[in-house]
Amino acid sequence: MTQSWWLNPCKPIDAQAIEQAQTRQQQLTKPAGSLGHLESVAVQLAGMQGQVKPSLDQVWIAIFAGDHGVVAEGVSAFPQEVTGQMLLNFVSGGAAISVLARQLGASLEVVDLGTVTPALNLPGVRHLNIGPGTANFVQGPAMSQVQGELALQAGRDSARRALERGAHLFIGGEMGIGNTTAASALACALLDCPVTHLTGPGTGLNAAGVSRKVQVIERALSVHAAQRGDALQTLFNLGGFEIAALVGAYLACAQEGIAVLVDGFICSVAALLAVRLNPPARQWMLFGHRGAEPGHRHVLQMLEADPVLELGLRLGEGSGAALAVPVLRLACDLHGQMATFAEAAVADRPA
Amino acid sequence: MTQSWWLNPCKPIDAQAIEQAQTRQQQLTKPAGSLGHLESVAVQLAGMQGQVKPSLDQVWIAIFAGDHGVVAEGVSAFPQEVTGQMLLNFVSGGAAISVLARQLGASLEVVDLGTVTPALNLPGVRHLNIGPGTANFVQGPAMSQVQGELALQAGRDSARRALERGAHLFIGGEMGIGNTTAASALACALLDCPVTHLTGPGTGLNAAGVSRKVQVIERALSVHAAQRGDALQTLFNLGGFEIAALVGAYLACAQEGIAVLVDGFICSVAALLAVRLNPPARQWMLFGHRGAEPGHRHVLQMLEADPVLELGLRLGEGSGAALAVPVLRLACDLHGQMATFAEAAVADRPA
Repeated sequence: MTQSWWLNPCKPIDAQAIEQAQTRQQQLTKPAGSLGHLESVAVQLAGMQGQVKPSLDQVWIAIFAGDHGVVAEGVSAFPQEVTGQMLLNFVSGGAAISVLARQLGASLEVVDLGTVTPALNLPGVRHLNIGPGTANFVQGPAMSQVQGELALQAGRDSARRALERGAHLFIGGEMGIGNTTAASALACALLDCPVTHLTGPGTGLNAAGVSRKVQVIERALSVHAAQRGDALQTLFNLGGFEIAALVGAYLACAQEGIAVLVDGFICSVAALLAVRLNPPARQWMLFGHRGAEPGHRHVLQMLEADPVLELGLRLGEGSGAALAVPVLRLACDLHGQMATFAEAAVADRPA
Repeated sequence: MTQSWWLNPCKPIDAQAIEQAQTRQQQLTKPAGSLGHLESVAVQLAGMQGQVKPSLDQVWIAIFAGDHGVVAEGVSAFPQEVTGQMLLNFVSGGAAISVLARQLGASLEVVDLGTVTPALNLPGVRHLNIGPGTANFVQGPAMSQVQGELALQAGRDSARRALERGAHLFIGGEMGIGNTTAASALACALLDCPVTHLTGPGTGLNAAGVSRKVQVIERALSVHAAQRGDALQTLFNLGGFEIAALVGAYLACAQEGIAVLVDGFICSVAALLAVRLNPPARQWMLFGHRGAEPGHRHVLQMLEADPVLELGLRLGEGSGAALAVPVLRLACDLHGQMATFAEAAVADRPA
């Protein structure tokens, strides 16, 4: 029997490029360390790209969408039809991520893994029809093994298209009414943390709504408790198609050697799943922002992640990662274009 | 006797544009509030620019440089000649702010108010020769009234050049070996806060160096204690030429109606001085980043400021503000280009 593809080894980081980039940082005309976080991300990107002066010209953004059976439990402020409506908005250019992709000159692809809207056929959207949304996971697994593997493969396929396009950076985004409930349930199963710490308002529940969401997640965790130690089965039990696709995309990027910029809460949960399945994948991840959803900081902490931005965002769609791109690009520009003390004939501090 | 120019009224913010921009934000295809801080800055900029859809195409960056007599007390990790050497680096394109200005398509002007390097005459630098750096403020006032007013006017002149160029945003930066000591001393005088809370490593002092810096500032505060209630005289007693120029620039921007993006610790101290002199100036200020210098958070708190970025920066030169520009531009793009629920035929959440 062949090994499941997601367990294949990740590409190693280039240690020599890291070292050369660190040396260069020390020589640039600024007090050592004074560019803070920007110095470390430039060095990290050098290691991923295997070159002392990395660049982020080609950015690939893939939005994965799917519906969630658990919405039947009343866990979202928006009606479920919005998932399909937003797919049209993504390709029509009116959604937040559409505006951001345009401004960044990034490629944007939209992958519909399966929504409740029947026979949706939108030009510019890849409709995969894995199912009419997931099943309600308080009653059983969210998806079958076959559906789960199709969703993982869909993410891998997107990463491979990104590779063909020469992408320097992969951003995964998500859209799916109800998907903070799935992400919170997954985070609870992975982190062994109280449900209330990892459950928030999502797109805008009030306190009573959040309390209801907590109860739904507690029921789901108890239904699937026996398989909690199995990260892949937990993904299939409590996840969404779009979350599984993100997991597959992140793992394929780490295997193919494409830097990943992780978006908010839901994407970070997918990143944590990817790392549980294949730990070296962590080295290929940068984190775009710390979002407003309260569970995000716990997931980031588990990943030892220090995101670029913190702007109180809670939109999804990959928007927080996209917003971080110009900052990362400027980090590369500073690293690549600043003069050294020797070049500029500026006195360094006495050793 | 005519009133000093810096007390002239600031331009009022356009309340109608604010209201229209807030209404628009509510109609865009995203959960209300889900773009967090980006929504409030887009609305603020609408109020400053008097239009529902603000833009930040034209960015003006002015670097003000000056030397500091207090460096004689051993308060800096770098030799004082670096101020002049960095002026050359700014106009040669090798400094961090030069790289950032180029990438942002921003205008960069470099104003030398007075350094220790005699007869410096660099093409592309405005040399004002207010003095060979300030006097050592532990022995007397850092600058005379005449020098202080010339520095304020230099900032105002830069703001007016920005206005002539149609700038949508004014960024002031600073360069001056020893200027975190001046900024900390000013912050202590303005905030009535322990010197140790407002004094940090600057460009890289060790613990013994910081302790020495604290003692120097304590001596200076005691020398000038009698005039502590007078913000303008305190600026002249403890400030630097470049800090006074920033104060003048911020006040002139508020009077002329140009949005200001404040950089790090030193610029925030200048912003606080501007607000003490003419409180409505605060309405024209946005804040680029929360820096690593420990005093910065106290100054930001006093200004009730919530900066865009927090990246552990401690470089100066306006670099933290420049790094925030793409994020503010994207905030404007999202605000101006996203579809409304009606335009995109997306269901809003039930009222």
